[in-house]
Order: sequence, then C-alpha cells, then structure tokens
Amino acid sequence: MSDCLFCKIIAGEIPSDQVYQDEQVIVFKDINPSAPVHLLVVPRLHIDSLNDMDDTHSELISHMMLLLPKIAKEQGLTGGFRTILNTGTEGGQLVFHLHIHLLGGKQLPGF
Amino acid sequence: MSDCLFCKIIAGEIPSDQVYQDEQVIVFKDINPSAPVHLLVVPRLHIDSLNDMDDTHSELISHMMLLLPKIAKEQGLTGGFRTILNTGTEGGQLVFHLHIHLLGGKQLPGF
Repeated sequence: MSDCLFCKIIAGEIPSDQVYQDEQVIVFKDINPSAPVHLLVVPRLHIDSLNDMDDTHSELISHMMLLLPKIAKEQGLTGGFRTILNTGTEGGQLVFHLHIHLLGGKQLPGF
Repeated sequence: MSDCLFCKIIAGEIPSDQVYQDEQVIVFKDINPSAPVHLLVVPRLHIDSLNDMDDTHSELISHMMLLLPKIAKEQGLTGGFRTILNTGTEGGQLVFHLHIHLLGGKQLPGF
C-alpha cells in the first residue's frame, strides 16, 4: 500500500464524507471547503496528476468530466458550479493523486 | 451565424492570438490574462456549457483534457498549471461557449 492519502480514503482506511461512488471514481467532501459545496472527484486508479494521463485514460477522464454536471445537479447547484484541476506544485496541487475540485453553492468570483 | 463570441473567433471574424488548433479545438490567449500564461481551450463545436455535454461528447472532452498537459509543456509550464472550467452564471461563466482555462507561469495560490 502506498502512502497516498486518497488511496487510503478509497481503501476505507481513512474516513471521508462520500456523496457518490462507482467502479471508476469516488466523490467526497473536501475537508477544507472553499465554498458551501466543495467536492473532490477522484479516480480509484492512482494517477499522480494530469501530466501522467495518456490516451489509455480517455474513457476515465471523460467519465469524470461528464459526471460533474450530474453531481452538481444532485447537489442542487442549479445556478452553476466551478471545476478546478491543479497539476503540479506550481499549479497548486497538494495531493499527488489526480482529483477534480467541484465548487458551488454561492456566486463564485472571477479569477 | 450566431452572436457567440467564440464562434466568431473560430470563424476568424474576430482576431485571436492562437497557440494551437486542430480539427476539434482551438487554443488562444485570454485577452484579460490572470497569469503569465492564460489560455482558453475551446471546442469548434458550439456547446453552451458542461451542462450541455452528454455521452456523445466523450471523445471531445477527453481530447480537450488530454491536450492540456501537452499545451502546458509547449508553453514551458514545467512547474505545473491550473485548469478551470466555469459552468453557469454562479460558476463564473462569462462566455456561453464551453471553454477550459489553462493558467500558469507563476506559483498559483490556493483557493
């Protein structure tokens, strides 16, 4: 087993507040939310970052992206939502297991 | 022809500073950059937002996502980059033609 925080969450070794799961991904609440709704969409497969994805991951990444509006709708985010994917240290990535932030529940500011 | 700003850019009716294009997408510089590198990855196909994507767009969205690290590498963003997709007004979406922001060139802050 790796020391990866998200792999441990996926394995159930560390608790998380899950809102969705399927064969490919789990979705749970960020423990330091930046908005009323702040979820992380995380593939079960350990991939360090978007830099490590290639054509073999096409189906996985499209599944993750097309899942976002469905999750947003389930969460009642009818007015909209923001999706952020940080890649690498300079991109602000803190956990090196690929994850997509889904934020909403208030008017989100510009950049 | 619609009044869509990005459709006009794609059609060449409005100039843009393009850095990449292929059969499915164009990539050009944001006119109000929020970072030293701030690009927009835009599908040629008019889709209002991520809310309007379904399984028929799987290949397109995976193409866009897997293109991001390639573009980032071409732009010299070896330290990392951030990807933002705003969906709907509350998500901060300003132009209702789906687009992915690619930001980098400095240490990007937390949320």
